[in-house]
Amino acid sequence: MITPEMLLSKKMVKVSFDRKLTHRMASSASFVCVGLDPDVDRIPKSVTGPTDAERVRSFCLRIVEATADSAAAFKFNFAFFEALGDDGFRTLRSVRAAVPDSIPVIADAKRGDIGNTARFYAESIFNDLNFDAVTVSAYMGQDSVLPFLDAPGRCTFVLARTSNPGADDFQSLIADGRPLFEHVAERVAVWSADTPGSAGLVVGATDLDAMRRLRKIAPDMPFLIPGVGAQGGDPEGVMAAAGSGPVLINSSRSILYASDGRDFAEAAARAAEKLRTTLNRARPEETPC
Amino acid sequence: MITPEMLLSKKMVKVSFDRKLTHRMASSASFVCVGLDPDVDRIPKSVTGPTDAERVRSFCLRIVEATADSAAAFKFNFAFFEALGDDGFRTLRSVRAAVPDSIPVIADAKRGDIGNTARFYAESIFNDLNFDAVTVSAYMGQDSVLPFLDAPGRCTFVLARTSNPGADDFQSLIADGRPLFEHVAERVAVWSADTPGSAGLVVGATDLDAMRRLRKIAPDMPFLIPGVGAQGGDPEGVMAAAGSGPVLINSSRSILYASDGRDFAEAAARAAEKLRTTLNRARPEETPC
Repeated sequence: MITPEMLLSKKMVKVSFDRKLTHRMASSASFVCVGLDPDVDRIPKSVTGPTDAERVRSFCLRIVEATADSAAAFKFNFAFFEALGDDGFRTLRSVRAAVPDSIPVIADAKRGDIGNTARFYAESIFNDLNFDAVTVSAYMGQDSVLPFLDAPGRCTFVLARTSNPGADDFQSLIADGRPLFEHVAERVAVWSADTPGSAGLVVGATDLDAMRRLRKIAPDMPFLIPGVGAQGGDPEGVMAAAGSGPVLINSSRSILYASDGRDFAEAAARAAEKLRTTLNRARPEETPC
Repeated sequence: MITPEMLLSKKMVKVSFDRKLTHRMASSASFVCVGLDPDVDRIPKSVTGPTDAERVRSFCLRIVEATADSAAAFKFNFAFFEALGDDGFRTLRSVRAAVPDSIPVIADAKRGDIGNTARFYAESIFNDLNFDAVTVSAYMGQDSVLPFLDAPGRCTFVLARTSNPGADDFQSLIADGRPLFEHVAERVAVWSADTPGSAGLVVGATDLDAMRRLRKIAPDMPFLIPGVGAQGGDPEGVMAAAGSGPVLINSSRSILYASDGRDFAEAAARAAEKLRTTLNRARPEETPC
């Protein structure tokens, strides 16, 4: 049985996610979260190696190095590493270790299971793999989220209103006069009330009205925001709607695959830096970072 | 980009999940799904090995061998294997390979992510790890579920009404006059209408009214049912409420940890066999198996 105390004692959390993020956003002057979704079939041919896992590792290490200056955070999409089979977690761990200590790392794993099982996922992600934050689905309710929220110094981003085509299928169903995603945010706010900084929300850039409503429910929570760029969210609208609390704008494919040539790392660096500048110009005033 | 065609061509699906399950339920005369949730801290001390992963592997191999005669299916809880770190997927693969070909294996991974990412999870679980079925969360909607449903010959169990303490937090919210879990089941029925046998539902044993309502929505879908026994669901009620379609009653801890002595495998075999007998006596008439 893994308890929060064990998580804390096994791997001492020196800096909590919220402090680390605040510091990093200030020092990098950036809202950019670089998403690592390494698809073997899209990695430039110039990245060679004896196995798919080695190619993914080499590619990610180059991307991390090239984009670190522009990154407020890195987000690891677990699916792309798990698809590497037995080498998946080792590759994930190796790339995660290459991220400078000052930059928060988010495990985009979207786990969601009963309490007894959730504790094992939390152990794996926070303690064994040493991520600062995680994404989870709250469909199974409180006991599926608490083991993550209870991990000292970590942050749990709960899916609220996502940016994908199917997001409206359930998230926007109206119960008691408001959409499901508001119910989720309200419960997360209650569950995390005693541990400020322990919770965040995933809020897509494609529905600014939803974003404004969620910011009212969770004025101080960090928002992890996918959907700017390729999916159509515009930076000015997003930065205005996201309002007061911390904001991380995720970009994955448009940074990773900015070029399929030998210059992919330089192209990724330019894409990340361009997004950083765009977001800084788009923010309504001199706030968070 | 992984397509259903690639999944099919890389690892030929000779027998679909629904045929395999029907045959297995008949030949074993069993509704029992043995859940593998191997917690290192609860494995009997008599199971020794150089690493946690080796102990988990030895323990699971003994459990699979001891309970196979009573099992209609095995369900692997991914969290407990991922908690083993770099050896997790290798251990999972090794235990999965030890399950006789005639017995369907379910990946209890509860994945749920956007379409592009879901394809990679489907690739990992169905193709690389060769599971017959998977559990997924539908919070993100259609594009998060389709890559699983589209995999030929596999089955995707979508979380509908679960049996854990927090299940009611969101699943029972009423929208358009019916609870969220009914909306989920209705959409899954629509999405899988063209591919019979591709979808199932996770339905907890602790809410028989919900089970009856879900059976009306999905008369032919297999139900994966946790919550009998320790969580309070009674076999007679469950077998009556689950009605017409195929039913798998999952039991994990009460089988795995039936004894912490050297006789753990024999005790697990007795517990699985007892559940098999109980469920067969509890079914209202001579139906599915």
